[in-house]
Amino acid sequence: MNWKNEFTAALQIEYPIIQAPMLGVTTPAMVAAVANQGGLGALPVGGLSPEKTRELIRQTKALTNKPFSVNLFAHRVPQYDLEKAKRMQDFLVKLGEENGISFEAQPLESFRYYEYHEQIDVLINEGIPFVSFTFDMLDDDTIKRLKEQRILLIGTATSTKEAILQEQKGIDMIVAQGIEAGGHRGSFLEDEPLPIVGLMSLIPQLLKNTSKPVIAAGGIGSGSTIKAAFELGASAVQIGTAFIASPESLAIPAYKERLASALDTDSVLTKAFSGRWAKGIPNQLMRAIEQSGLEIPPYPIQNSITSALRAAAQKQNNNEFTQQWAGQLAYTAEALPCVEIFKKLVRETEEAFQ
Amino acid sequence: MNWKNEFTAALQIEYPIIQAPMLGVTTPAMVAAVANQGGLGALPVGGLSPEKTRELIRQTKALTNKPFSVNLFAHRVPQYDLEKAKRMQDFLVKLGEENGISFEAQPLESFRYYEYHEQIDVLINEGIPFVSFTFDMLDDDTIKRLKEQRILLIGTATSTKEAILQEQKGIDMIVAQGIEAGGHRGSFLEDEPLPIVGLMSLIPQLLKNTSKPVIAAGGIGSGSTIKAAFELGASAVQIGTAFIASPESLAIPAYKERLASALDTDSVLTKAFSGRWAKGIPNQLMRAIEQSGLEIPPYPIQNSITSALRAAAQKQNNNEFTQQWAGQLAYTAEALPCVEIFKKLVRETEEAFQ
Repeated sequence: MNWKNEFTAALQIEYPIIQAPMLGVTTPAMVAAVANQGGLGALPVGGLSPEKTRELIRQTKALTNKPFSVNLFAHRVPQYDLEKAKRMQDFLVKLGEENGISFEAQPLESFRYYEYHEQIDVLINEGIPFVSFTFDMLDDDTIKRLKEQRILLIGTATSTKEAILQEQKGIDMIVAQGIEAGGHRGSFLEDEPLPIVGLMSLIPQLLKNTSKPVIAAGGIGSGSTIKAAFELGASAVQIGTAFIASPESLAIPAYKERLASALDTDSVLTKAFSGRWAKGIPNQLMRAIEQSGLEIPPYPIQNSITSALRAAAQKQNNNEFTQQWAGQLAYTAEALPCVEIFKKLVRETEEAFQ
Repeated sequence: MNWKNEFTAALQIEYPIIQAPMLGVTTPAMVAAVANQGGLGALPVGGLSPEKTRELIRQTKALTNKPFSVNLFAHRVPQYDLEKAKRMQDFLVKLGEENGISFEAQPLESFRYYEYHEQIDVLINEGIPFVSFTFDMLDDDTIKRLKEQRILLIGTATSTKEAILQEQKGIDMIVAQGIEAGGHRGSFLEDEPLPIVGLMSLIPQLLKNTSKPVIAAGGIGSGSTIKAAFELGASAVQIGTAFIASPESLAIPAYKERLASALDTDSVLTKAFSGRWAKGIPNQLMRAIEQSGLEIPPYPIQNSITSALRAAAQKQNNNEFTQQWAGQLAYTAEALPCVEIFKKLVRETEEAFQ
């Protein structure tokens, strides 16, 4: 058994390790560091404007001549009652004032939301070879357009049913996002309860029920977890939390430090920050929103409403009022440059395979 | 790397595979079949009378001269409002009538509940070498009594915090019950939310935070899942669902057949059957209780209340009105004798290790 396979050939990479696209954490420097070491860097651009998308892609290209993937959020922006949203915003302004975090609350009417359709031209024009996505299925027209450009499509599934749908739509590879994963859940079947599937069952179930290569994600951050994923049949692994404490990460110091002592149950599911289920370490902001009795607006409305408070808290290095996404193996996040983290993962994996 | 280790020596077994103690499914014949093949059979006696406990142990001894473990439920029986319990019982009688399942509802006042304290003498007198337990911690006196007899104690943890407490109490080995596992959750910290930890994170977290050997449980049922568990650092694996469809199992045919087509998300958390969180495949009884609007009495009250209806449904081979516990890799349950299932697991694991 060898961990280099058809997958590494298909993606023109040396090692089947993907750095997870973590919006708000991942930078062009992180993507480039991983790409330059022979892994697959993944640039998150979910919900960004076409201009910002292009800018980040070009910043990354300036740091590496290796291919990298770009990650989209495939949600649609829902209609939502502005009055209810205003109540949430007022609550957060008051909460900020009470805790010494002042910020300017932008009028809700002025929020501009972008959908992925607006980013496709940029991806094609910039010659991006791999596009991954989460939160929902890409629509048929987008899939057709991207496939015409021979762009390889990587979906996200948190259950076998989701993976079966993606295979039917012609998606090329599937990220199996186990319940161990930090950050936002990719779950997208609205009539189903939120899937709670462990990666050790999700990988074999996907291999049994679909024919697509599976990328293991969630709680991977060491040689033994990487090797276990390959043992279960994964073609590659996607690693997020282990890169959060690097200098290339946008995470604030207090959040980086919190990861080192996090136990498995310290990462919990919440809709408080964004309106979508995501996993992170509880703090005052999470509890205040959950206990407010207010309806939490859906994604991306809530995400925009909380973002000014979170940005102001980050400036203070205050991890009680910003998100602290974390997988269930958060202690693997070491304060090392991304290059060193990547080399260490490769070294540990090579040793495990010997 | 070899999968036979100090663990197999300590437990006087040839292969570090434990058949999970599944009350209502596991029989003395199942325990003996696994023990005779060189694995560790585990006899479930949770909540049974001392007489029934002795009887099952002796039945098992008549079928094998190998050592086997006995599994206790370490809960205490709570006080509960009989009137509320009566409302649940009346609801179930009516539900049974509406669905052609008649049964005699025993007066609630006559229910006799047993706690594990009443079973300890039997275990000691019968010379049981290994005692595993779940649902709570054994009390200090019981731990002391069992240790004086040099009985090896195996706890159950669904989170690192639970495992740390067990180590502090002197428990010898810990079953890491991932969220992938079918049947009852071993979670026992009442002030904490129910832990939802995938096995791929739970094993490394336990190894980092305790010094006890870890037994991997949940969604294990093939050579690759067994090898992955050892890769993650487990000393042994515990396998339940894969044995449910065997002829030695008490499961009804309709339940056995249902397992083959179960996907990962077909096993869901519910308190409906017993009053404790457990994972199984939804059916009419689960939905009816959850949607009844009635308060579900705590374990073991609800377990006793639903048991007459479930037993009557089982006689009809009706899997809509009995429990269908299942892990997230339920398709591994094959209709083979336990000896063949065990041999297949060993063969697949040996191949994976080659």
